[in-house]
Amino acid sequence: MSLIVQKYGGTSVANIEKIENVARRVIHTKEAGNGVVVVLSAMAGETDKLIALAQSASSEPDEREYDALISTGEQVTITLLAMVLNRMGYRARSFLGFQVKVLTDQAFKKARILDVDTEAIKKELEKGTIVVVAGFQGVDGENNITTLGRGGSDTSAVALAAALRADVCDIYTDVDGVYTTDPNICPQARRLDRISYDEMLEMARTGAKVLQPRSVELAKKYDVPVYVKSSFSDEGGTLVTKEDKDMEKEVVSGVTYDRDQAKITVVHVPDKPGIAARLFTPLAEHNIVVDMIIQNASIEGFTDLTFTVSRKEAKEARVLIEAVATEIGAGKIEVDDNVAKVSIIGVGMVSHSGVAAKMFSALSREGINILMISTSEIKISCVIQAKYTELAVMVLHEVFGLSQKR
Amino acid sequence: MSLIVQKYGGTSVANIEKIENVARRVIHTKEAGNGVVVVLSAMAGETDKLIALAQSASSEPDEREYDALISTGEQVTITLLAMVLNRMGYRARSFLGFQVKVLTDQAFKKARILDVDTEAIKKELEKGTIVVVAGFQGVDGENNITTLGRGGSDTSAVALAAALRADVCDIYTDVDGVYTTDPNICPQARRLDRISYDEMLEMARTGAKVLQPRSVELAKKYDVPVYVKSSFSDEGGTLVTKEDKDMEKEVVSGVTYDRDQAKITVVHVPDKPGIAARLFTPLAEHNIVVDMIIQNASIEGFTDLTFTVSRKEAKEARVLIEAVATEIGAGKIEVDDNVAKVSIIGVGMVSHSGVAAKMFSALSREGINILMISTSEIKISCVIQAKYTELAVMVLHEVFGLSQKR
Repeated sequence: MSLIVQKYGGTSVANIEKIENVARRVIHTKEAGNGVVVVLSAMAGETDKLIALAQSASSEPDEREYDALISTGEQVTITLLAMVLNRMGYRARSFLGFQVKVLTDQAFKKARILDVDTEAIKKELEKGTIVVVAGFQGVDGENNITTLGRGGSDTSAVALAAALRADVCDIYTDVDGVYTTDPNICPQARRLDRISYDEMLEMARTGAKVLQPRSVELAKKYDVPVYVKSSFSDEGGTLVTKEDKDMEKEVVSGVTYDRDQAKITVVHVPDKPGIAARLFTPLAEHNIVVDMIIQNASIEGFTDLTFTVSRKEAKEARVLIEAVATEIGAGKIEVDDNVAKVSIIGVGMVSHSGVAAKMFSALSREGINILMISTSEIKISCVIQAKYTELAVMVLHEVFGLSQKR
Repeated sequence: MSLIVQKYGGTSVANIEKIENVARRVIHTKEAGNGVVVVLSAMAGETDKLIALAQSASSEPDEREYDALISTGEQVTITLLAMVLNRMGYRARSFLGFQVKVLTDQAFKKARILDVDTEAIKKELEKGTIVVVAGFQGVDGENNITTLGRGGSDTSAVALAAALRADVCDIYTDVDGVYTTDPNICPQARRLDRISYDEMLEMARTGAKVLQPRSVELAKKYDVPVYVKSSFSDEGGTLVTKEDKDMEKEVVSGVTYDRDQAKITVVHVPDKPGIAARLFTPLAEHNIVVDMIIQNASIEGFTDLTFTVSRKEAKEARVLIEAVATEIGAGKIEVDDNVAKVSIIGVGMVSHSGVAAKMFSALSREGINILMISTSEIKISCVIQAKYTELAVMVLHEVFGLSQKR
């Protein structure tokens, strides 16, 4: 008997009819002789409604209370699915984070899973029960409810699969797999049959919405095969797994983009040790994540420093940076939130030269100016003007031959 | 410093504006130098919405899942109130049943509280925190979420007050106290300043909706003074407390009615030992509560047996009774769900004679036929035709002089 963890997203459980569809899919898996653990998100739109409710109570809601409020969305879907499964004649039981229990750190709104206690679930699986677990939530060491951030249900599913040593973790979503790029802006996008953990991780981090990056980290760490599938069709699917020989042939596997970017430049910064630390410490203290950082060559003891943050945090970042800039005698601050980041990802980059040059010249041919560049072993990202996002994606998808099945 | 438990019902927390009103009232109590523990119900109408959702998943929803679903209503209100209090500058923390923890038995949908762990709450109170607890919910010994039945938040509040040895338990509701009868059908109804636990218990059991009977039982057992007040006004209020000398003067303190009644008669029952047990055991096994039971004098070895159940359980009760009736050779079953129960309650009945006679003749003068009678030391109930309910209440309220302040 195999043990299969299945995660269904918000659109798959948006109403009772859809929950019944999920139930039939779960039963199908169960009847094929498998143990099944189901992880659910809240109904599509429900979490947003709860967030709006919290905002109506306070413009800055207490984070502990916020998490306890928005975690109710999953409590609704898991109990409804368990009821439907029971009605259809199958023993099913819902589990909340505290009932499992899914232990996290105390970082409300973006908690990380520290441990998953499998005892209660295993006991139910032994009885043949279909176990239905609330995604997105856990409890800290003091039994406070925590949530894992947007897309956190993916991470719940992978963490459960890892802890239970499940054979596979199926992520059912509204697309039928991982694509070479976003099919909404590039019709030539092609579904990948397989992708390595590392590539998937870079894709998730640079803008692909299909999986939460943390879930891919966990899948890699515990070697959990993750299968991304559509909950509305039996076709397709993408297996996220260990790198193998076939994959290494791909120079570039995907193109991603992220419009949630703002570029901040501090002009005329005295080029002295410790200055960068002074500039970025206040941002870290306010939990503002800085993505790229570029420091120009120093001219006469002064330099320009440019970095990117999430667009919605640009205003706060500017205020924090301005305070320091005055202290250290730097020049003015320039904020440009009309930028986007496009990235190409591929494990083959490691062994192929000229990939970066090919990317830059492709963009250049279209007259797209590159504002910032950042690279890793398997990724090259460029910040460009936001209006060129679609064009850049199309061009890069074309130039690296991603529409052809290889 | 006094410790005050305050419970607010669904109409008092129906939206953010009303929750803000509750917050102001809580802060007022806190600023007067008291420790405050707040117990909340779900937003008015919310529990009904969740019940409808459960019904859409299954006509007979699994009870464990049902409780886990409907308990989300209180999770929403307590977190919102805690956010509002925090915004207003007061340290506040919400507690769910499992976080307190409120230990109950495993009778889903109508669980009884077995124990309240006060450690976590006391720790917060010592820090000056306003503690906000979810009413209506607890957990059983296996961490399954349970609910306490309609009006269960009253019971949560009294149980917390008892466990914390609070000085008083304020029950804020949409009426400003306990009335001699329902003011909606009898404009002469008068608010009582005080009422004894025993009288309040009989009133709650015989149809008064203002408090859940179980909450009054607990208040009596642990001697918790309960103050029923309006959350929309500072006027009025009724103190439910130990019997005192003044109260004993009242022959009748209140008139109640209950329209949720059905009368079932089993005709021509062989009058042999064990027959009643055989008839009522199946009902007990199906958790159908039998209220009154009357057995007529035996004629030639046969008798008629009449009893009342809740109207919505009459159909199921009939089916169960019919099966036994056939086995024991009884005659036909008659069900009348067009009946109601009117009751008079008063601790003074014990020492006054003629109260019952006065009740019966008052009803008789109005041509109201009495179908069944049941009495306790401080209560007399009559089952009558449903259409006479209002008339009977008005007449009894008048004949026992309840509109005059004494």
